[in-house]
Amino acid sequence: MGLVVQKFGGSSVGDIDKIKNVAYRVIEESNQGHQVVVVVSAMGDLTDELIALARQTGPNQSEREMDMLLTTGEQQSAALLAMTLNNMGCAAVSLTGWQGGVATEQVHSKARITDIKPDRIEKELTQNKIVIIAGFQGLSPNGEITTLGRGGSDTTAVALSAVLKADICDIYTDVEGVYTADPRLVPDAKKLEFVSYDEMLELASLGAGVLQPRAVEFAMQHNVRIQVRSSFKMEPGTLVVEGGKMESNRIVTGVAHDLNVAKLALFDVPDQPGIASTIFQALAEASINVDMIVQADMRDGRNDIAFTVCKDDLHLALPVVERVAKDIGASGTSCGQDLAKISIVGAGMTSNPGVAATMFAILADENINIHMISTSEIKVSCVIDAPLINAAINAIHKRFNL
Amino acid sequence: MGLVVQKFGGSSVGDIDKIKNVAYRVIEESNQGHQVVVVVSAMGDLTDELIALARQTGPNQSEREMDMLLTTGEQQSAALLAMTLNNMGCAAVSLTGWQGGVATEQVHSKARITDIKPDRIEKELTQNKIVIIAGFQGLSPNGEITTLGRGGSDTTAVALSAVLKADICDIYTDVEGVYTADPRLVPDAKKLEFVSYDEMLELASLGAGVLQPRAVEFAMQHNVRIQVRSSFKMEPGTLVVEGGKMESNRIVTGVAHDLNVAKLALFDVPDQPGIASTIFQALAEASINVDMIVQADMRDGRNDIAFTVCKDDLHLALPVVERVAKDIGASGTSCGQDLAKISIVGAGMTSNPGVAATMFAILADENINIHMISTSEIKVSCVIDAPLINAAINAIHKRFNL
Repeated sequence: MGLVVQKFGGSSVGDIDKIKNVAYRVIEESNQGHQVVVVVSAMGDLTDELIALARQTGPNQSEREMDMLLTTGEQQSAALLAMTLNNMGCAAVSLTGWQGGVATEQVHSKARITDIKPDRIEKELTQNKIVIIAGFQGLSPNGEITTLGRGGSDTTAVALSAVLKADICDIYTDVEGVYTADPRLVPDAKKLEFVSYDEMLELASLGAGVLQPRAVEFAMQHNVRIQVRSSFKMEPGTLVVEGGKMESNRIVTGVAHDLNVAKLALFDVPDQPGIASTIFQALAEASINVDMIVQADMRDGRNDIAFTVCKDDLHLALPVVERVAKDIGASGTSCGQDLAKISIVGAGMTSNPGVAATMFAILADENINIHMISTSEIKVSCVIDAPLINAAINAIHKRFNL
Repeated sequence: MGLVVQKFGGSSVGDIDKIKNVAYRVIEESNQGHQVVVVVSAMGDLTDELIALARQTGPNQSEREMDMLLTTGEQQSAALLAMTLNNMGCAAVSLTGWQGGVATEQVHSKARITDIKPDRIEKELTQNKIVIIAGFQGLSPNGEITTLGRGGSDTTAVALSAVLKADICDIYTDVEGVYTADPRLVPDAKKLEFVSYDEMLELASLGAGVLQPRAVEFAMQHNVRIQVRSSFKMEPGTLVVEGGKMESNRIVTGVAHDLNVAKLALFDVPDQPGIASTIFQALAEASINVDMIVQADMRDGRNDIAFTVCKDDLHLALPVVERVAKDIGASGTSCGQDLAKISIVGAGMTSNPGVAATMFAILADENINIHMISTSEIKVSCVIDAPLINAAINAIHKRFNL
């Protein structure tokens, strides 16, 4: 007999019919003789509706009060799933984050889990109950209700899996697994049987979006086996596991893309220590998330620095960049919209030096101009014109035999 | 500087505009230099909506899971009111029942408060914050979230008032106070300046419905000054206080009525110990609430027993009564619908023996037949035909000079 942690996101528990579907998945696992711990998110759009209500109260919402408000969503889903299971003849009990022993830092809206005391969960499991935990939430040392940030239910599920030594952490979602590319853009994209934690991290942060990066990091650190699978289909999904367990001959695992990209540049920035810090500190103070950062070759002791932000943040970033450019004596600035980022990810890249060059060649063959390049050990990202993204993904997907 | 506890029901926090109205009432009290603790119910129809969702999960809902589900409603209102106050420049913090230290029995859906540990509330008050408590809920010794039953927010407010030694517990509602009769039926019904706890208890249980009877009992035991007042108007409401503080020359305080009445009778019941117990035990086992019970004069060692139930319960009560009638050898049964109960309430009745007779005379003058009579120390109730209730109330209201 094993122990399985199942996590169901908001779209999987959007109404009572969907919650009944979830209950069948839970019972199926239980009927195989496993102990089952279920982590649920808030129903469908409830979190967004609560945020809209909160905004009606005035311009400011304290993060503490937002946490008080939003955590009710997961508590509702958990109770409704427990009732549904009970009505199907299956003993089940719902627990809030604090009842489940989820302890976090004294931080609101994006707390980290510091510990999980599983006493209550284990007590309920030994009484042969399905245990349902409200995801996304915990309790701070000061007795405050905290949240783990958007998608935090993934982190709850993975952390519980680590503490309870679960055999597997099944993340149920509305896609069937992790694909070699977005199946909506690439008709012959394939579902991957395995990805490594590193690959999943790059894919997640690059917009493949099926799993929270923090949850993947946690899983990697605590060696939790994750499976990404469909709430609505029975087939196995994609296993996220240690790199060593993977097929070693796979160089590129998948192609990810992100259409929400804007580019900013500062020209002729003085080549002095602290200049980059000045620029990006100013952006951080304005709460602007910077993604890729590229510094071009030095000419006469001066540099160009370019970086990307979310499209939505461009109007916030632009005045900051213009102010900083003036302060530090840059010769000018530029910005570009209607851009996209395309990335190849693969743990095999480290030992295959020609991969980046192959990617650039494929894009050149398609007459696609590259605006920016950034690389990591297992990833190569290029910024290109947004209208060309479809051609780029399909060409790369085909030429790397994904 | 005093301490005021304010309680706002569901209709007072039905949407954000109403919550803003509540915030003004809170700030007004705070501006007078008082510390303010606010108890809120769930928004408008939210509790009913959650119950409807729960019913969709199947025929049965465990009380424990219902408590998990329903307590989210008050938590949401509390957080939204805190945000609203913050946006008006007023420091405020929302607390769940367990954060506010509200301890209850290990019972679900109708737990009693066993203790309130006000440490957290007092800490927040000393930091000059308005403290908002989610009403209707507490924490059991086993760490379970419990509820106090419908209208339990009144009890939360009164219990907090007792523990915090509040100067007053203001119960804000959609009526302006306690009236001498229902103002919708009696145009010249007057708002009472004072009622005694006893009178309020009788008025509450007789359908005047502005205050939960349990809350009034609690207030009486702990000598909490309650004021029933309007959420939407500024005038003072009705003070519920010790009998000794009342105007002593008032014999009848008010006329209450209840249109939700059905009558059942068993004829020729054997006059033996245990017979009444057999009848009402059977009804209790069927979860039927019995209101008035009247046993008629003995004839030849046999009695008639009549009682009233809610109209809605009549179809449940009838088969029980017929079965019991057969078992105990009663000669027959009868039932009556389309009935109403009219009651006069007044602490002065005990020392004025003619009050009941006057009431019967008034009804006789109006040609109103009385089907049942029941009296207590401070109340006389009569069951009459429902269509005559308006005439009865107005006649009694006028003749007692209310």
